[in-house]
This record gives sequence, structure tokens and C-alpha cells, in this order.
Amino acid sequence: EDSGTRPSGQEAFDDLEPDQIALLLESLPLDAREHAWFQVPVESRADVLVAMRAEPRDSLLRLFDSEALDQLTSSLDAESLIELADSLPDEVVDIALARMDQRQRHYYEQSASYEDTQVGRYVDHELLILPHNSRVRDATRLLRRTVPEHTGHLWLINRTGHLAGAVPVTRLFSAREAQPLSELIDDEIEALNAGLDLKEATDRFELAAVPALPVVTDEGILLGRMTQSLALETLHEHYEAQLMATAGLDEEEDLFAPVMRSSRRRATWLGINLLTAFLASWAIGLFEGTLEQVVALAVLMPVVASMGGIAGSQTLTLIIRGLALGQITTSNVMPLLKKELSVGGLNGVLWAIVIGIVASIWFNSAAIGLVIGLAIVINIAAAALSGVLIPVLLERLKIDPALSGSVILTTVTDVVGFVAFLGLGTLVLL
Amino acid sequence: EDSGTRPSGQEAFDDLEPDQIALLLESLPLDAREHAWFQVPVESRADVLVAMRAEPRDSLLRLFDSEALDQLTSSLDAESLIELADSLPDEVVDIALARMDQRQRHYYEQSASYEDTQVGRYVDHELLILPHNSRVRDATRLLRRTVPEHTGHLWLINRTGHLAGAVPVTRLFSAREAQPLSELIDDEIEALNAGLDLKEATDRFELAAVPALPVVTDEGILLGRMTQSLALETLHEHYEAQLMATAGLDEEEDLFAPVMRSSRRRATWLGINLLTAFLASWAIGLFEGTLEQVVALAVLMPVVASMGGIAGSQTLTLIIRGLALGQITTSNVMPLLKKELSVGGLNGVLWAIVIGIVASIWFNSAAIGLVIGLAIVINIAAAALSGVLIPVLLERLKIDPALSGSVILTTVTDVVGFVAFLGLGTLVLL
Repeated sequence: EDSGTRPSGQEAFDDLEPDQIALLLESLPLDAREHAWFQVPVESRADVLVAMRAEPRDSLLRLFDSEALDQLTSSLDAESLIELADSLPDEVVDIALARMDQRQRHYYEQSASYEDTQVGRYVDHELLILPHNSRVRDATRLLRRTVPEHTGHLWLINRTGHLAGAVPVTRLFSAREAQPLSELIDDEIEALNAGLDLKEATDRFELAAVPALPVVTDEGILLGRMTQSLALETLHEHYEAQLMATAGLDEEEDLFAPVMRSSRRRATWLGINLLTAFLASWAIGLFEGTLEQVVALAVLMPVVASMGGIAGSQTLTLIIRGLALGQITTSNVMPLLKKELSVGGLNGVLWAIVIGIVASIWFNSAAIGLVIGLAIVINIAAAALSGVLIPVLLERLKIDPALSGSVILTTVTDVVGFVAFLGLGTLVLL
Repeated sequence: EDSGTRPSGQEAFDDLEPDQIALLLESLPLDAREHAWFQVPVESRADVLVAMRAEPRDSLLRLFDSEALDQLTSSLDAESLIELADSLPDEVVDIALARMDQRQRHYYEQSASYEDTQVGRYVDHELLILPHNSRVRDATRLLRRTVPEHTGHLWLINRTGHLAGAVPVTRLFSAREAQPLSELIDDEIEALNAGLDLKEATDRFELAAVPALPVVTDEGILLGRMTQSLALETLHEHYEAQLMATAGLDEEEDLFAPVMRSSRRRATWLGINLLTAFLASWAIGLFEGTLEQVVALAVLMPVVASMGGIAGSQTLTLIIRGLALGQITTSNVMPLLKKELSVGGLNGVLWAIVIGIVASIWFNSAAIGLVIGLAIVINIAAAALSGVLIPVLLERLKIDPALSGSVILTTVTDVVGFVAFLGLGTLVLL
């Protein structure tokens, strides 16, 4: 009866790219996913696993018996093994390594020496390399034999393996047969250091209009290249991770993660937020006496907290984007603060008047209108201040503001909002 | 005294790409931005304006006198004018068009006939085109003369202008001089329809490892190409817009937008949220009598609302990503709902126990612990349900769930949370 959850026509897997099969498998509940996996053409399986997110991939790998693992390891190159290594038992990785030729094993060890946020880990080795003293005829001879994907350049190295320059293949057409390739080098190609952050490397691609950039060690030795496809994939994952982080989730999260695992992970985030909610409750608790006498304050509390939270998240989001673009420096924090406080002040006064009037009429008390109006102004101003300062401080402490900025901000606007509102209520209404 | 807000060494603008100058200008307060603008090399100014976000760009264009506008329009090609047209007065666009040669004007009109979300609007015209019956020697002759950026292919057209195929330049090396180019066509290149959504086009780039894809009309006539650089830029902007949308902001928003304009725009979002906050207040107001008698309920209210909101936003975020990836179909909504309800149920019960115990001790009342525990279970279950159904319904109504999903979800979890908590409180505690 679960036929409805299967993709329509698994036979059609044959016509799909590994990336597309990966997306499809991820969208299936666990039992249907298991069923569909065995329809994936054997020769595509390694590529499909590489293309999948870590969690759904692990859900499949757990099904593999030793025979299936054996078959998988027989077809892995260094780049695929690097992607899968964390999902495989150590002994399987060892077997895969033992089955590789020496060059692939060397590539693997090289890549594995870099962090999973660094360009060096994802180096692509299918590139066309020539000695720096080669001539145009050597290049055309090479290009006649083999042309890997993303080939826009030939890479020149000297005897010690250092990158000596990049020659665009298109320049070969206007060159003489005997011309040295060193005369055709494109000076605008800047190599990526293997230690560079992967996300920063994608930014270089947006500026450089090339299908691949060379990756070199600190000493300038050519390790391989990073392709524009990887840049696109990285950008995709980076932003997805950021969107997921705002809800305390991981980019690798499986849509159909097992209930126990998923619950456990989300419980942590709920627990953190519970602490901040209790902090807000504690702030309200300070004014129990007031609430007993003026119950209207309890009714209106969420309005004060909510307006502060929303105004603050607008400022926060703008600042987080600015930080991500590298646009926020010590020299413009003050002008920004001034601008955001002005915007907050204007909106605070505007909505204070609206909310004040509504509250006055609702509870037939001008004093309540005054109290909530003042509290709104105070809380929106506090929100503007926190919206600028929290992400800037987090960034300085090397904590990702996209992950925790919003929790901290809401705590501030909740506590400030409740204290201002109930505190003013105590002063004015009792 | 505002020297601190200026970039260190504007003379260094000469060494920067237009994209980088654009980012830098955007990061400056309005007066410093105006000052810095005049340091931008005259020949880069059009490109810098094109690279800027609409709002900060408009802030600069407003400074232009007729002479500056005149100078700007003298150097615009069709692709730049398309980007700037919305920021320029109509008569200036007309002048720019009048100054273009006929071909550029034709390109402009072609591009302008597509929406700003469609590939057709951003077609790049610097491509190498040959008649479909050309031979290898024609291709090499062409490549000797000129090679635009992103050249990985030559494009063949027939007499009616229809795309007849793409020939990778690298295939020319292994071909004979007199060989027809039609024998070298790469069958894997799929043309983009000019009406295709720009974001969908970037997904094609992630699968196709090419520096540019051809763009054709419905009839198959070659209009130009879309480059991988544009794909990267589009992806960047798409996700930025999504992140900004979660706070009701626009991707084009200026970090230093004038206070009045910024306030007005944000006021709308605050107003929408105010309505939902009043809805929550109204729900609380139904239980004024109860709150008067049991003030502990007022103190604990935010905990119930907050736990529901957080749990719901986790489900919502996961579903929004699934929708964006095309992974959510009618066939897996039910299994997803079941899974999310199970996760919510487990976490609901877990945190209900923790919060129930804390509340019992705090207010020295087992009954209050029971009431809040039950309310937490109900609200987290409602959150899981809404977290799945709200984005799926919005998507079906063609409303972007990233924009409004979170507001609607919070309204649901606030109202359900308050009603469940105060309603149970009325039943159990009075």
C-alpha cells in the first residue's frame, strides 16, 4: 500500500543524473528509499551516494552488507572517497584505499590533510598540466588526446611542481606552432590557496569568469583545480546551511530522519530556547503583584514583546547580511547604529500611538494606553540597539550570528519589553 | 570629522573590480558614499552602478546632474541599460537608446520583452556564432580574431537563426581542417528557454559543467547565452532575498537607506505582525477572569507560546527547504506529517515533563504543572501540524512560504498556546 510514496517509474532512474537521483532518494520515506535504492543503476551508485546529504546517505549505507560495501569500494576514486569517508567504517575506508592505485591514494592523503571547510579537501585532479617550457604544439598534442570537463586552461608547472601560469586554450588558435606557452599566460588568473575557506573561494569565482581556478599549497605547488560547478554547489550549501541554522537545524538533516534521532537533536534547540523563555517568565514574575491588580497588562504583554522582536529581527537581518558581505567595519558601526536607532525611534513612536489608542479604548483607560505606548518606544529602541550590536559582537567572538543572533535578540526584547511594560504599569497604574 | 567612515585610500579604487567597488560604496553612509563616488574611475562608473543593489544605486543616481547622466548614457550597452533602466528617468533611457547602434537597440528591446525573473532579460550577446554548415577552419579563423570571456563553445545556427548545435572549442584540436563543425556537436548541451525562471536556470548549471548555456526563444531561435557567472550571481541574490524576506525586508535594501524611507517600509511589516499580536492578546483576553485569580498563568504564558513557536519553526524550515528542492510531493506529505507529529509528540512529552516539574515547584502547585504540561504537548503537536501544512498550502496558493510562513505559524502557535494553557487553567484551577 505504500506504492504512492514511490517515485513514478523507477526505471526512469536510468535517464537521471546522479544529483537528481540523490534528490529523489532524499525525498522518500525510509522504507521507500531502501526499495528505490536497489533500482539505481549499479554504475551510478557511488556518484549518487557522493551527491546525497550526509544523513540520508548514512541511512542507505547502514543497509549495505559486506558484499555491497565491497562492490562500492572497488569503484571509488580519491575525490569520491573523501566525500564518503565519514559515512564509512574505518576498515572499509582502508580497503578502498588499498584498492586504489598509488596516485589516487596520494591524492586522497593530500585532500584528507585539509579541513572540510577548506578548498584543498575538494581539489579536482583532472586537469591538463604541461612543463613551463612547453610549446604550442605540445599543448595541441595534449588536447588532441584528452579533454576533461571544465577545461578552459592548460596549467604550466616548473620542475619543482610550482604553478608557473595558466594558458587559455582559446589563445592557442592565434599562436604559432613553435611559440612557447609561457608567452600565452593569462595574468589575471589568481591561484587559490588550498587552505582558503571554500565559501571565500566561491566569491573569487564570481569575479573571475573562468570554468576552473588552480589550487596551490602555501609554497605554490599545484595540487589541482577547483571547478565552477563546485563553486555553485558550495554557494547552494552555504546558504541552505544558514537558513537551516536559523531554526537550529543542520544542512545535512534528513527530511525523513528517524524519529528518535530527530527528536533528540531538536530537543537541544528547544532546551536552549526554554531557558530564554524562563528568563522572560522570571521577568514577568517580578511583577506578580501588579498583574494581580491590573489584568489588562497580562492581556497586552505579547504585543510589547512581539513588536520588539520583529523590529529587532529586521535590524539583525540587515546587519547579518552586511557582515556576510564584509560591508560592516569599525568605521561604519556608529553611523549604522544612529540610522537604525532613528528608524526604530520613528517606528516606535508611530506604533506606540496606534497601540496606545487601541489599548486605551479596549480597556477604557488612558493610563494603560500611555504605559503600553512608552513600553513600545523603549522596546523598539532596545531592539534597534541589540539588532546592531549583538551580531557585531558575536562576529568578533567568532560565533556565527546567523545561528545564535536571533535567540539572543529575542531574549533581550522579551525581557526589556516585559520589564518596561510591567515596570511602567507598576509606577503609573498602582 | 567623518573621515573615519571613508574607505582607507580611495585612490585604491583603481585596483578594484567594479563588483568590489560596488560593495564598498554600499557600505558607506550616504554623505561618505557621495564623496567616494567621485573617486571612482570614470570608465568604471557604469559597471559599478550595474553591480550595485537597486536602492544604494538610486541614492547615487539622484546626485547626477544632466551632464553626469549624459556622460553615463554615452557608454551604455544594451545589457547595462537593462539593469539601470528602472533607476533612470524615462527620458534618459530614451537618450541612451538613441545613442546606441541599431544592433544594441535591438538587443535592448529583445531583453526588455522578458520579465526581470526570466533568463531572456539577462542574455549575454558576446558569443561566437557560425552558420551550421561551417567547417573547422572557419571556426579557427574566428577564434583567431576574437575570444569573448566564458568561451567554451561555438554556437551553430541555421539560416533562420535557429540554434543548430554547440561545438566545444576543445574538440577543434582533434578535428581536420575541412571537417564540418556539425560533426563535432556536443549533444549534452541543452538550451535554456528565454522564458525560463532565472533561478531554475542556475540549477541547470549545477548539472551542466559548462561556462555558458545558449538561450533560445520558444521557436528555438538563438538569442544569446547565459554565463556561469550570472548563475553564481543569481544564486547569491536568490538566497539573500530569501534570508531578507524572513524579516520582511527586500534584497535591494540599502544598509544606509534614508531614515524616512526605511521606517515607512518596515512599518508595514510591523503592522502585519501587530495584527497577529493583537490576535494573541484577544485570545488571552478571553480568560481575563482566570488570570485575575491565578496570576501564575500570566507569568508562564510566554513559555507555552515560545516552545510552540520554536518547535514549529524547525518543522517549517525543513519543509521550506524540501519545497525549494522540489522534494515535497503529494505522495510524501502524509508520511512527513506522521514523522513530524511523532517528533513533536516525543519532544512535547519530554519538555512537558521538565516544564511541568519546574512550574510545580516554582508555584508550589502540582495542578499548574499539569496544566502547563498538557498545554505544551498540545501546542507542540499543533506546531508540527502547522509547520508541515502551512508551507505546503502557501506553495499551492503560489505564495512564497519563506516570506509569510513564519508569521502565520507564530500566530497559530501563539493563539493555540494561549487558548490551550488558559483554557486548561480555567478547567483545572478554578
